[in-house]
Formats: sequence, structure tokens, C-alpha cells
Amino acid sequence: MIQLNTVINMRLKNVKGAKEVIDASPYIIKNPENYKGIYKSLFHNNNPIHLEIGMGKGQFIMQMAERYPNINFIGIEMYDSVIIRAIQKQEEKKLPNLKLIRFDATNIEDIFDHEIETLYLNFSDPWPKKRHSHRRLTSDRFLKRYDSIFTNKKTIIQKTDNRKLFEFSLKSFTDYGYKIDELSLNLHEDDIPNIETEYENRFSSLGYPIYMVKVTK
Amino acid sequence: MIQLNTVINMRLKNVKGAKEVIDASPYIIKNPENYKGIYKSLFHNNNPIHLEIGMGKGQFIMQMAERYPNINFIGIEMYDSVIIRAIQKQEEKKLPNLKLIRFDATNIEDIFDHEIETLYLNFSDPWPKKRHSHRRLTSDRFLKRYDSIFTNKKTIIQKTDNRKLFEFSLKSFTDYGYKIDELSLNLHEDDIPNIETEYENRFSSLGYPIYMVKVTK
Repeated sequence: MIQLNTVINMRLKNVKGAKEVIDASPYIIKNPENYKGIYKSLFHNNNPIHLEIGMGKGQFIMQMAERYPNINFIGIEMYDSVIIRAIQKQEEKKLPNLKLIRFDATNIEDIFDHEIETLYLNFSDPWPKKRHSHRRLTSDRFLKRYDSIFTNKKTIIQKTDNRKLFEFSLKSFTDYGYKIDELSLNLHEDDIPNIETEYENRFSSLGYPIYMVKVTK
Repeated sequence: MIQLNTVINMRLKNVKGAKEVIDASPYIIKNPENYKGIYKSLFHNNNPIHLEIGMGKGQFIMQMAERYPNINFIGIEMYDSVIIRAIQKQEEKKLPNLKLIRFDATNIEDIFDHEIETLYLNFSDPWPKKRHSHRRLTSDRFLKRYDSIFTNKKTIIQKTDNRKLFEFSLKSFTDYGYKIDELSLNLHEDDIPNIETEYENRFSSLGYPIYMVKVTK
């Protein structure tokens, strides 16, 4: 029997012609390993670089890039079918402070070297099974990887609707020496500036709380 | 016009004959300053001492003392009208590992000296106004006081239904160097052993989440 996960992965991976669109786009950084340590040169300035891992269709990072022109943004996504939507939007907007990378974050330390100041993790896969906990983007295994991509100023901002993932993250962050700078257990009820992701748009109308934390080290 | 706060304080303070009952009880530690650093001697053993600040009518600490006979418990409460209920229950149960103190926690460092291992803060006053934030039992001002009452093993376990107080506490704890050991954003949905307070009994039936965190340093 085919698994639900497999179906989703097929749907996410097999978009006709996606590979060609991605390969042809000037907004995608090909061979990102070649820019390790020198992403500044791609932006032609010394502004801080903020990274989103798992940007999906890119609504969040694109609005951030529009709102904060003095920050450089990089969005990473591993699925062709969603990253092409981000590319299409960027081909209209042509934001100079936004670059996109098609990449699996498991090897994130292969493409950045102490040059990221802030990392956004929005509605990441909760990997609910305990034996998969090291795959969560806030596990100590990932926090260790981030050490080598961050400058000496380290900020992670996480949003999720998944209570168990959020509880896990708070423990993991503080275990690893991060301190909680901002926190909301019901973001949409609070008076905190917030740019929504596509997922959040759909989810917030259901009335469940969105959790948000900003940690620094 | 009389303030709501004043009415509550009057209700809490003016219970006829409460002072006499409290003064006459053998279960209350009078002049707790005299036992500073030597509470062990009151229990006649070397078991660890756990403290609850604001025990109210004592349901939580009494059930804890029954369940964990190898831990010594001390309950502190500043209001006569509720502490007499705790005294009445203890006069029935006569638990050897439970002592009660009528005291204002603002001066907690006057009565303990590096002898508490675990501190329980259950449904503490949220002091919602920002200018009162230093009165919250998890403010840095209180965390500093606790430093001098704790042994070198420091554990604080907080439960609350107040989202803003809980968010404040998590920031305050991690700022002060505590790490999150256990966390639940919906305690009554989780499979975590839990002894309820009187307040929690009433509150949980309404379906709002109870927040719980255990931090260590």
C-alpha cells in the first residue's frame, strides 16, 4: 500500500517542467557551495543576511524582503513544486535583496560559513515520532549545524501551530544555551508585528493558537 | 470608591478568630527566622526540602507530602483565611513531612539559607500591570532572592493558566540562566503526573489550557 507521506512527496517532487524552470531562473543560486563565506558578494553590500529554511512558496520571505530593504534575505526550499512558485513571484518583483536556493537543510553547513545573522523557521515539519526527533529543525543536531552558519550574533525566530514541536523547541533552545527574547503563545491575539506565511493564512482562520519564539545566543 | 483588590484583601485577611487558630497550631512554624539554615532539625532527617510559595488552602502540598514521604515539604501562605484551611487539614492528617509558615514571600531570604531543593509556584498572582512586574514571583528580583534559599541543586516548577505570566516567566527564567527541563502548554491533555490545586480543579473544567514548566539551574 502506498503511504500518505509518499503521495505527498510525489506531489511535491513531480511538477512537470519544474526542473527546467528552476535551472533557467536567474533568481536561484546554483552551486551554492561556491558562495560559502562570500554571499555578501552576491548582494554587493555589507547588509546583514537573514535566512529562511523551508520557505515554501515564499510569501513570508518576499514580504520581509520588501519591508526591510536594508537586510538581505535568502530562502531555502527543497521541493521543486513549491520553490517554482517563489521563483515566479520573484520574477515579477525582482527584489534585489532576495536570493533563493534549492537545497536540503540537512547539509546547511556545506553552503554557509559564519555569515547568517537571523534564521527563520516557519511551520517546519514536526516529525512527531520520537525516533525522528533529530530531523526536527530545532533538534540539537540542527542547532549544532547552525553554529557554523551564524555570525557571532545568533537569532532564531520560530513560528508553529504544532504544540509538541514548540515544547520540544523551547527545551532544545535553552539546553543549547539560547535565551528567550520574545515569546507568544497566541501570536494572532498579541500586538506583535507579524508577516504571515501561506500556511498561517489558512490555519489562523481555524482559531488555533500560533506559537512564536525569538531566541538569541 | 472601594477597589476590587481591597475587597479581596479584606476577604482574605479578615476571618474571625483566624489569628488565634494560627497561633495555637502546632503545625505552624512560628518565628521562622529562628530556623534559617536549620530546617532539617525540624524534620529530624536529611531528606530534601521542597517549598511551595502561596500554597493557599494546601491541597497541592498536602497531596504531595502524602505521595512523597521521603521528601520534606514546607508551605508558605500570607493570608490567614486560607492558611487556616491548610492547618485544619493537617490537624487531621498529621503528616510528619509537612510544615506550614504564615509569611510574605517578599522577604523569603530572611527565613531560608541554601536549604531548598525544589520550589513550586502554583497559579501565582499575575500582577498584569507592567509597573508591578517585579512583584511577580518569577521576576528577576524574586529569582535573585531564591538564589540564597536554594541548595546548589535548583529546581522551580510553575503552573499557571495565565498566558502573559507564563510567557514572562519563560523569558525571565532563561534570562537568569535556568534551562527548561519539562514543559507543557496544555498540561491536562498530556500524560504527565500532576497533582491539582484547588484553583486548578475549578479552572480545568472550563477547558482553558494549564501551562506548566520545570526549570533547573
